[in-house]
Amino acid sequence: MARLKLGMVGGGQGAFIGGVHRMAARLDGCFDLVAGALSSDPARAHASAAELGIDADRSYADFNEMAKAEAARSDGIDAVSIVTPNHLHGPIAEAFLARDISVICDKPMTATLAQAESLSAASQASKGHFFLTHNYTGYPMIRQARQMVAESALGEIRIVEANYLQDWLSGAPAEDNKQAKWRMDAAQSGGGAIGDIGTHAHNLACFVTGLRTTSLSATLTSHVAGRVVDDDARISLQFDGGARGHIWASQVAIGNENNLTLAVYGTKGSLRWAQENPNVVWFTELGKAPQKITRGGGAANPAAIAVTRIPAGHPEGYLEAFATLYREAAEVIISDDRTSITLGAEDGLDGVRFVEACQRSSEDGASWIELC
Amino acid sequence: MARLKLGMVGGGQGAFIGGVHRMAARLDGCFDLVAGALSSDPARAHASAAELGIDADRSYADFNEMAKAEAARSDGIDAVSIVTPNHLHGPIAEAFLARDISVICDKPMTATLAQAESLSAASQASKGHFFLTHNYTGYPMIRQARQMVAESALGEIRIVEANYLQDWLSGAPAEDNKQAKWRMDAAQSGGGAIGDIGTHAHNLACFVTGLRTTSLSATLTSHVAGRVVDDDARISLQFDGGARGHIWASQVAIGNENNLTLAVYGTKGSLRWAQENPNVVWFTELGKAPQKITRGGGAANPAAIAVTRIPAGHPEGYLEAFATLYREAAEVIISDDRTSITLGAEDGLDGVRFVEACQRSSEDGASWIELC
Amino acid sequence: MARLKLGMVGGGQGAFIGGVHRMAARLDGCFDLVAGALSSDPARAHASAAELGIDADRSYADFNEMAKAEAARSDGIDAVSIVTPNHLHGPIAEAFLARDISVICDKPMTATLAQAESLSAASQASKGHFFLTHNYTGYPMIRQARQMVAESALGEIRIVEANYLQDWLSGAPAEDNKQAKWRMDAAQSGGGAIGDIGTHAHNLACFVTGLRTTSLSATLTSHVAGRVVDDDARISLQFDGGARGHIWASQVAIGNENNLTLAVYGTKGSLRWAQENPNVVWFTELGKAPQKITRGGGAANPAAIAVTRIPAGHPEGYLEAFATLYREAAEVIISDDRTSITLGAEDGLDGVRFVEACQRSSEDGASWIELC
Amino acid sequence: MARLKLGMVGGGQGAFIGGVHRMAARLDGCFDLVAGALSSDPARAHASAAELGIDADRSYADFNEMAKAEAARSDGIDAVSIVTPNHLHGPIAEAFLARDISVICDKPMTATLAQAESLSAASQASKGHFFLTHNYTGYPMIRQARQMVAESALGEIRIVEANYLQDWLSGAPAEDNKQAKWRMDAAQSGGGAIGDIGTHAHNLACFVTGLRTTSLSATLTSHVAGRVVDDDARISLQFDGGARGHIWASQVAIGNENNLTLAVYGTKGSLRWAQENPNVVWFTELGKAPQKITRGGGAANPAAIAVTRIPAGHPEGYLEAFATLYREAAEVIISDDRTSITLGAEDGLDGVRFVEACQRSSEDGASWIELC
Repeated sequence: MARLKLGMVGGGQGAFIGGVHRMAARLDGCFDLVAGALSSDPARAHASAAELGIDADRSYADFNEMAKAEAARSDGIDAVSIVTPNHLHGPIAEAFLARDISVICDKPMTATLAQAESLSAASQASKGHFFLTHNYTGYPMIRQARQMVAESALGEIRIVEANYLQDWLSGAPAEDNKQAKWRMDAAQSGGGAIGDIGTHAHNLACFVTGLRTTSLSATLTSHVAGRVVDDDARISLQFDGGARGHIWASQVAIGNENNLTLAVYGTKGSLRWAQENPNVVWFTELGKAPQKITRGGGAANPAAIAVTRIPAGHPEGYLEAFATLYREAAEVIISDDRTSITLGAEDGLDGVRFVEACQRSSEDGASWIELC
Repeated sequence: MARLKLGMVGGGQGAFIGGVHRMAARLDGCFDLVAGALSSDPARAHASAAELGIDADRSYADFNEMAKAEAARSDGIDAVSIVTPNHLHGPIAEAFLARDISVICDKPMTATLAQAESLSAASQASKGHFFLTHNYTGYPMIRQARQMVAESALGEIRIVEANYLQDWLSGAPAEDNKQAKWRMDAAQSGGGAIGDIGTHAHNLACFVTGLRTTSLSATLTSHVAGRVVDDDARISLQFDGGARGHIWASQVAIGNENNLTLAVYGTKGSLRWAQENPNVVWFTELGKAPQKITRGGGAANPAAIAVTRIPAGHPEGYLEAFATLYREAAEVIISDDRTSITLGAEDGLDGVRFVEACQRSSEDGASWIELC
Repeated sequence: MARLKLGMVGGGQGAFIGGVHRMAARLDGCFDLVAGALSSDPARAHASAAELGIDADRSYADFNEMAKAEAARSDGIDAVSIVTPNHLHGPIAEAFLARDISVICDKPMTATLAQAESLSAASQASKGHFFLTHNYTGYPMIRQARQMVAESALGEIRIVEANYLQDWLSGAPAEDNKQAKWRMDAAQSGGGAIGDIGTHAHNLACFVTGLRTTSLSATLTSHVAGRVVDDDARISLQFDGGARGHIWASQVAIGNENNLTLAVYGTKGSLRWAQENPNVVWFTELGKAPQKITRGGGAANPAAIAVTRIPAGHPEGYLEAFATLYREAAEVIISDDRTSITLGAEDGLDGVRFVEACQRSSEDGASWIELC
Repeated sequence: MARLKLGMVGGGQGAFIGGVHRMAARLDGCFDLVAGALSSDPARAHASAAELGIDADRSYADFNEMAKAEAARSDGIDAVSIVTPNHLHGPIAEAFLARDISVICDKPMTATLAQAESLSAASQASKGHFFLTHNYTGYPMIRQARQMVAESALGEIRIVEANYLQDWLSGAPAEDNKQAKWRMDAAQSGGGAIGDIGTHAHNLACFVTGLRTTSLSATLTSHVAGRVVDDDARISLQFDGGARGHIWASQVAIGNENNLTLAVYGTKGSLRWAQENPNVVWFTELGKAPQKITRGGGAANPAAIAVTRIPAGHPEGYLEAFATLYREAAEVIISDDRTSITLGAEDGLDGVRFVEACQRSSEDGASWIELC
């Protein structure tokens, strides 16, 4: 596969998710990082670029300038990764899409519904592709589960449980680390736990089951004095076809590091998966012994095998799942195949609609809100 | 400790919970089963009694007759165990309490709120004691957790999660086993999953945290066509002092056998426990490594040690926890100490109020209902 | 089933295993404890008897006196449990067997090979039965495993691993608890870890696989200064038919409470079981997903179901497994069926031969010793 | 950090470990793969090179030619990765070391002791560095354990257990996959399970504890008819200072995928780690509750943090651990610091000595062999 040229906006020194995207882009050798507007502070942007081996003439202090300059180069970037705080995703993505440069964007897609709708329209109008990195969809055992549900291994779906528990925001705000800062500012993040992790849980539930949320009822809470955004979200969901869903996303559940779990219960069987031990999915048929299906093991299906790099028992982790999204994005860019499994702007819009509906429901006493 | 004389109502051939009560009563050698009205069918009652070594003259076909006869004997029973379907608990208990015979009653206490209130009054008027067997409260690691919460090891409680998942009612009613029958008849059971297992979850949450439920919102569902009672219940709780709680009780969650779990999250730490591996409780202080506290291990506290029979690593199970309730009941009967940890009619009334409030809330669109 | 009359030798105040035997005898209601020589100290013997509700005229200070007196009574005991230090098992058992009273004896059967051979002969000559309580053989999932091996679910057995790890003797002798005392005296125990827990591991390996040990090589070690018996034993085994086995028994493996595990590897599949979570056995067929077979679950086989008391997910533990041995002993005594699954004097002799061979091998530089 | 230029010998189309090395080299962005002799078949070598984006003029069909040509270029490679069958490691490594090009070599270092001694001498004579990729030493929790042992958190070490269980060679040879082929040919591999995985287990035991093996006794077995090399190895070890060790390496243990575990027992505490869930290490102090120490969690120590990329709960896996070795190799090459934690030719020589001693011991009836 030809190696693509990648740019990045955000992700300068001190950032977290930018480094993750870079490792993900590198792992399978599909991308070379050649340009960046890594910080809105020019000095920090250029220092970061130098560290990463980006040529000085392709280090920008402004994303608009970058989009313009890269579009004008014959060796301009094929895609740009956006790893800024959420409220900037929309404007940046649109700047690149307007020049037909593909966009790989962290989640949630935008901080507001208006931004999401605008970006969705921009995506449709562009020759570039838009990819949303709900990275947990890249895990082989999630692909396994998705194929099994599609093949009716569980029968008709009754209940979907997606919980995402963390504890890093359990303390008083001053004790939080710096990653907490912008997330706790609603103007930058668009929300607290609901946007940061609730969207992951919701996306994963839909990705695996293929169901769409028709309505929801949510209660967003803040357990820590002085915090303005939610740090705990409970959502009940109604899916098309009649299944029910429940999401609990919390950032104050002490003893949980990054405990994202998914359980899908059907009329014939169930699947259970936990992100902290991601190489396993449990499958139980009613009345039979539970089976431990492993990535690379004898019961792995084609969907899992397609995104598996190394043999069973050699654990693949978070970065590998993330890298799968980058590899699949590269494949789409090269083939221009718009029917792939990758998530796009419509999925991003669904996610922002989900956040907005949760906020509206919660403000209205957990009233039920129609989604589609 | 002197051995007490025990009677039993219900629990004849083919029953499940009666056998459990008998094993629990025997394990620590505190009771001898000497009388019974084991079935409302006389032939079955007497055959069952013979099998259990009960003298023919103390095998009764009617609980009223039994209460009268045993009260009249100089060697009459000290206590009676009630292991019938729920709707009979109240009348039977009152018949014995009226004669100052202590009662050990399976949960939920009654099938209706009116019965519960009547029984609660009868209990207060009796010289006999009333014991409610929420057997999960007998586990040593539940006692450990209760003491730790009371000692503020977790700080202020924020969130309490009690889930009770089973799968034995996942199939069509005809496929269910016979234990399912009376439970699925609302007149006998007073409810489905909410009464059968939801009450256990709610009781456990309150027992461990010492919190009282002030209000709740519930959604009771039936996932199986033709079933008239609920097989799945989701409840949000508000506790006094501001903590929130959530209960999920389901009997259609394939892959779960008897998966009762409790998690308590506070400002300083958390506790997590699972009934299927009951000899362990996990304790995490914010920012520290999770600790695996074991029954009999170095970190067991006095409350746990008090109900521990054998050394660490030698698993005690469900029957041992149940037997602890019997032993504690014997201690109370002998000492007449009414300040013990045992659960009584007020707890039973709380449980029936909980069921009734859940049903009312669910019928009213998950509206919030005040409880106390 | 008629209730049998039980006596006990040893197990007075302050003892551990005596209480375990009493609970095991009570759980299923097959035995009433009616006589005892609970201590060689008369005062302690009688005080202990009184506590246990044994009539004063059946509390003995001497086991010979007890055997004689009970044999002479028309309502004399049907069986006696022997729960003394190991070196007394032989003489006591022979005293009762000589009067055709059945014996339920803790393991190892004796402290010396000469005692074992004598007892084995005495057992054959008696109308009484001899039962050896290798209690781990009572677990339902061990029975499940045994049946699966017998049915060739694993193919031909290649490797058997039985590890039994504890840590309660890790500290200096003075820090050990009083249970440690007699075990650390070779004259009373006949050995250290090898006799106390190594015999359990060896017995379990043979019980599940049906294989006999033909030769072994052992290294017994003492890791704690001042300890005269072994606290750690490593044994390699050769089985009839060519399978190999390995045992590691240690009482200084910090972090292990009572961690007895068994793994059996065959040409077609494997089984794995751990005593601390005994309600589960793992079965893997080559190239397929591992299956979690649970006590009471859909994949439980008749051998497991026969010794299962309560439904899946309601954990049965150590005492239940022990009680199964008592129930089966009662069935044998009543039926006089000598073809049962219960372990007898030949098994006990095998165990003492195993200990003796391990000690001989270890003294001779881990040389290989023929066993049969 | 400046990016280094990397070459590779072996790892052409159809190989396994070559791809792993390439991903490891890419993940942290320390190396660019610019040259290769990817196969001894020229057509396959050049096709593989083209796929990997290696310029045609730096694709070689012969490693000697490659070493010569690259040494002559001003932009020649800084290091070469050797990922061929074991018997070629020595000659290839020496060809590059002779030209002062650093070598990153898969394990075991060589197929014979003579090769290992020759290579060790060559390494000392070269200005290039030699790195041996015992990749499991790159796991953060292994570094955590190593630091904890060094800081005496466990007291004095008594017992070290390293087991490495797989099942992929359980079937008849014809059923094995093609990775099995050269491994099963003693001339190419130098041994079976003992070299392929036994060396990993031994290296890990020594790496974590800092102990050296003074003598060993081994039994190598082949469980599958027609197999000429061992598929199962049991080794007893004596360490300097008196600790004992045990290794079990098997490739016929059905139900084990890549189940490498390490347990270290000391006088004060123990550590336990399992490769299939590598982000956790268990620490138990005698008499206290076991602690679950996680990569990135509050109890992670500096040695672990130094090789941690992403937050706790976001699992890092096998490739990340491998990539750490590449990053550390890059740091050594750039700094020329020969005191680093990386493993070199002396460690490789230790490993080959270990294999050779195991084979010798096994042929001699598991006799004890002195190692140092």
